[in-house]
Amino acid sequence: MKGSVIINIYEEALKYHEELKGKFEITSRCRISSEKDLSLAYTPGVAEPCKKIYEDPDNAYLYTRKWNTVAVISDGSAVLGLGNIGPLASLPVMEGKSILFKEFANVDAFPIVLDTNDVDEIVNTIINISPTIGGINLEDISAPRCFEIEQRLKEKLNIPVFHDDQHGTAIVVLAGLINSLKLVNKNISNIKIVINGAGSAGTAICKLLISFGALNIVMCDKDGIIHKDKYYENNSMNELASFTNKENLKGNLADALVNSDVFIGVSAPNLVTKEMALTMNKDSIIFAMANPIPEIFPDVAKEAGVKIIGTGRSDFPNQVNNVLAFPGIFRGSLDVRACDINEDMKIAAAHAIANSVDENHLNFDFILPKAFDLRVQKAVAEAVKNAAIKSGVSRI
Amino acid sequence: MKGSVIINIYEEALKYHEELKGKFEITSRCRISSEKDLSLAYTPGVAEPCKKIYEDPDNAYLYTRKWNTVAVISDGSAVLGLGNIGPLASLPVMEGKSILFKEFANVDAFPIVLDTNDVDEIVNTIINISPTIGGINLEDISAPRCFEIEQRLKEKLNIPVFHDDQHGTAIVVLAGLINSLKLVNKNISNIKIVINGAGSAGTAICKLLISFGALNIVMCDKDGIIHKDKYYENNSMNELASFTNKENLKGNLADALVNSDVFIGVSAPNLVTKEMALTMNKDSIIFAMANPIPEIFPDVAKEAGVKIIGTGRSDFPNQVNNVLAFPGIFRGSLDVRACDINEDMKIAAAHAIANSVDENHLNFDFILPKAFDLRVQKAVAEAVKNAAIKSGVSRI
Repeated sequence: MKGSVIINIYEEALKYHEELKGKFEITSRCRISSEKDLSLAYTPGVAEPCKKIYEDPDNAYLYTRKWNTVAVISDGSAVLGLGNIGPLASLPVMEGKSILFKEFANVDAFPIVLDTNDVDEIVNTIINISPTIGGINLEDISAPRCFEIEQRLKEKLNIPVFHDDQHGTAIVVLAGLINSLKLVNKNISNIKIVINGAGSAGTAICKLLISFGALNIVMCDKDGIIHKDKYYENNSMNELASFTNKENLKGNLADALVNSDVFIGVSAPNLVTKEMALTMNKDSIIFAMANPIPEIFPDVAKEAGVKIIGTGRSDFPNQVNNVLAFPGIFRGSLDVRACDINEDMKIAAAHAIANSVDENHLNFDFILPKAFDLRVQKAVAEAVKNAAIKSGVSRI
Repeated sequence: MKGSVIINIYEEALKYHEELKGKFEITSRCRISSEKDLSLAYTPGVAEPCKKIYEDPDNAYLYTRKWNTVAVISDGSAVLGLGNIGPLASLPVMEGKSILFKEFANVDAFPIVLDTNDVDEIVNTIINISPTIGGINLEDISAPRCFEIEQRLKEKLNIPVFHDDQHGTAIVVLAGLINSLKLVNKNISNIKIVINGAGSAGTAICKLLISFGALNIVMCDKDGIIHKDKYYENNSMNELASFTNKENLKGNLADALVNSDVFIGVSAPNLVTKEMALTMNKDSIIFAMANPIPEIFPDVAKEAGVKIIGTGRSDFPNQVNNVLAFPGIFRGSLDVRACDINEDMKIAAAHAIANSVDENHLNFDFILPKAFDLRVQKAVAEAVKNAAIKSGVSRI
């Protein structure tokens, strides 16, 4: 039945897109209905704000929309479950993301899809268009290129650069984990965490959890546990091996899961069986985020004694949904013209999301707030703003 | 007094921009207020239009906003009368242009300002972002780089590329000239036309008038008449010399104007004196488009016997205003997914603008329709659409 519900959504979504003829549009914030209007908004009056910006580039934040504008940028190389479908075919996703920015946090976001997979080309292109915008949301760019692209842009630009597949996911997972650990009364520094999937999301989750105090993370990928005795073609995996898996475990995912407290899946359907879940420690926690089929279904996990399970789906409890994070994060960053989105800001966002579930409601099936609770965005924006100021990346 | 009016406009424009906080914004065409909405506009439903576009790229025109989206792109190298003020300082102009597209022809246009003046970088950047958009409006890019940039983009891309400073101006000048020649009963093939200013606008005007049948054009620039016996550093001027100035005149602007029928100025204030205008033929026509101070003021020109004078200003009769052309041109081009904006389409647009002044109203002080007569945009769009179909560049 779940299957047929999904098929219906696909058919309906196609019709929905055909009728909409595009999910965003550009609107004018001023009426142009007289010569006077034209002389203010365009020539000759427009010359004056131009001159003021020429005198001081920061005036662009006063006289243009730069202060509120984010580009949602992709090369279409790692789109949803579809893979490398190219820029044009990724456009519906980027339009969707753009309107979520607007609907959830009043950020003006527009899609830019790039007709190249080359790292240098992508970096140069984004730098070249960067004066236009106040922030950059990278989306659906495949690993490991996404790491280098983000890193180089962060070094070059003084506007926030944020690869949502990495950090948005990591922040919401951390938020869910903060609340889960409260419920099972465990401490981040004493638990064993297994992450399956060493792509963009898995790598970012791993790094953020370490920033938050995790000491024992075992990363797995298709070929099993990532460890120090192997050389990986993909250098980001050698890097992961260097600061994870302290006991230098070897083997497959099942081996990794034995005596673990937390499993985080950003991988593929049905990879975790009931038997594997049974080998985890007491009061175990699972975030099985493969979409639409998770690594393990909630009912199976519960049967195996797993205490808390979250997925990527809205039809199960505890949905890990990026939309809880990215709109508020950019809102807060833009509001203080942050030049970066740093670890402090990400952790502040995770706390704000976690704290949005009040203690009276917090339970095994309610560790994360609902996507449509707009108080979350406000709390995230506020927390991110304060963290930006405190960590010195605010520019106002 | 004119001077103080302009100063007031500048002050008012600054306040206007500060209060607006940006002239455009991105709006969502769909409400996202439930899990269902999210599943249609975003995951998992959005995967379906992605797949359809992957199967056939043209489906992007059905399922995304590409069909109606234009980027207004500049490097800020030749902005209004301000010159090379850079990308950020040009942003108010590009935002203004973007909203004119929306207000006049319901085209969704957004600004992209480029942090590079390098021709290769500009071309590559625009090609890289091109899957996003349905058309490209180049703006305020200095000559001669603008010619190469436009030419290379036209060769590479199958969406319309239009440098408005060149062709928008040329089209409106041609429209004004068509009506002026009717009034003075002269024929394009029998008249001597002098153009002062061999930058982007002057060059494009020259080429379009030749496409329309002009046989005797003399181009002038800062150093006087452009002729074949001189070598110009700027190669576009050698090209101009090759197909203009048949009599191989030499000398300055005053020399060029003797016995001319039409003067077109896209240059600098007050370059044409009453004495110079007196040397033109009977029933002479002047378009003095330097802004805000024209090459010759209308009252002075009339004293010298000039029959028809147009300027770039809205406070004199016969304003030559690009806004008469570019919105309708893109509307018509987008409506048939034109892969180019060619000479036929430009001439069709000029005729549509000229014909928008009905014969009862046509007179020496009313050769061009008013900017706010929206019937003009409709007529231009229709004419451009038909010309695109007839000339084989329509793709539907």
